[in-house]
Amino acid sequence: MIKKLAITGGTHGNELIGVYLVKKWKEQPDLLIRSNFETLCLHMNNKAIKEVRRYVDHDLNRAFNTESLNDASLETYEAKLAKELNKFLGPKGSDNPNVDFIVDLHTTTANMGLSIVVSNMSDITWRAIAYLCQHEPALHVYRWQGDEEDAFVDSIAPHGFAIEVGAVPQGVLRADLFLQTEALIYRLLDFFEKENAGYSMNLPNSVEIYDHEMLMDYPRDQNGEITAMVHPQRQDKDYALIETGSPLFLTFDDKTITYEGEPLYALFINEAAYYEKGFAMCLAKKRAIFIAL
Amino acid sequence: MIKKLAITGGTHGNELIGVYLVKKWKEQPDLLIRSNFETLCLHMNNKAIKEVRRYVDHDLNRAFNTESLNDASLETYEAKLAKELNKFLGPKGSDNPNVDFIVDLHTTTANMGLSIVVSNMSDITWRAIAYLCQHEPALHVYRWQGDEEDAFVDSIAPHGFAIEVGAVPQGVLRADLFLQTEALIYRLLDFFEKENAGYSMNLPNSVEIYDHEMLMDYPRDQNGEITAMVHPQRQDKDYALIETGSPLFLTFDDKTITYEGEPLYALFINEAAYYEKGFAMCLAKKRAIFIAL
Repeated sequence: MIKKLAITGGTHGNELIGVYLVKKWKEQPDLLIRSNFETLCLHMNNKAIKEVRRYVDHDLNRAFNTESLNDASLETYEAKLAKELNKFLGPKGSDNPNVDFIVDLHTTTANMGLSIVVSNMSDITWRAIAYLCQHEPALHVYRWQGDEEDAFVDSIAPHGFAIEVGAVPQGVLRADLFLQTEALIYRLLDFFEKENAGYSMNLPNSVEIYDHEMLMDYPRDQNGEITAMVHPQRQDKDYALIETGSPLFLTFDDKTITYEGEPLYALFINEAAYYEKGFAMCLAKKRAIFIAL
Repeated sequence: MIKKLAITGGTHGNELIGVYLVKKWKEQPDLLIRSNFETLCLHMNNKAIKEVRRYVDHDLNRAFNTESLNDASLETYEAKLAKELNKFLGPKGSDNPNVDFIVDLHTTTANMGLSIVVSNMSDITWRAIAYLCQHEPALHVYRWQGDEEDAFVDSIAPHGFAIEVGAVPQGVLRADLFLQTEALIYRLLDFFEKENAGYSMNLPNSVEIYDHEMLMDYPRDQNGEITAMVHPQRQDKDYALIETGSPLFLTFDDKTITYEGEPLYALFINEAAYYEKGFAMCLAKKRAIFIAL
């Protein structure tokens, strides 16, 4: 039973679709009302939103690991903010958290279409994903397990995931992706209303996912500066398979670097925010996750 | 006769194609060598480039008006930088400037393809444009005359223009647009080599341009906050005609706002950097500019 759900936007202040959807719902709260649970929505990083920047001191969406949340000595803007948000929405790991489910709204400069990024393996999280996939055939699911501990916003609650839509530049509102994200949220609310009411949904018994395998960085020189770009034949080809030997990067002196690993699917290709994190794309395997019916 | 040309990149620190092209040419200066003139290339706003931001205090590409350049009291980072750059490349309005022609490299989040933005009306500037249009049929030319005085980087030199390519997000390198910008620069160098040598080029006697008419802001509330997005039917339709009565914006409560002016062409639709400047797109008339042959 989901009693309280949180929709969070502006975790990254330059990802405007979440910022403006939350703003819309604060002005029109009736749109989120359902019969058997409560939904709150909030802006996460108000200072970054105001400055139209990803963050002030560091990435808020990597700030929710238990050690940082418990470390009173951390004084950065986002470390302090993470503790406040954890108190308000969590606390993380609690048996009696303030919200049961978090859906965190993001955009990406990669051509990811309408995507879910999930680390949580709870039954209700995956039943929700199965319902969304059933009703939105264009939806892709990426399971991220690249960190020792899930430190995303949605990890504060027992259940949840992030929505990622793209391609959209930082600092830009694209109406098409705004409308798609909005529709996906209403569908998610519909799911919880049905689920809470014990309504039979005929969910599929499995969901196709892209399972995180590895990160692929840009070629770099000894100073850490990139020496190549994502190859034109790879750009915008998110969720496509990279075959061994196919073009991956193009160096600034016009040489093609090919991919030499086993065939994998590429995601988050050429995302602006990941240059500094040190990766050009994520590589994943396609597999099925079975749903608890 | 063009004796010295400057290629400037990183005027906006988050427009990476110019930043990395200049870096490439600094490492491979032979690529720019031509027989009868000199080409220098430089990064304009090193601090903004390092921080991957458009600017530090304010837009460098609006900082080259004569009054600001002569005002010793201005203390912002970009005001001081503009004076240094003006001394190095200009000075503006001089009979004996350090460079004759500036081509300033930009990117845009709007779907502008390969574009020239020009305010300069000198014969040599327009002969260069005519040559480029003749050899690059996809090239569009936008004449900007929206300010009292041209305060762009290229206004420091007697001749010049900016190249704008898009759509590319801020902070992202797109290889296809990198290669197109690079090829356009080599063609420009070819033109000056031929022009200086008195080579007969069979230039067209006119060039089709989009002539600046007005700026169109987003709908905003009394606090200046936007209340609508660029309409999905308008997004990415740069250089297309907007007919009277056609969809222009979509409000956050799903109402379509139509365009009620005379038919005009829309450019720089939904450019990230222009939200704060207060415009959603530029509107222009199509006309011909005659070339001095």
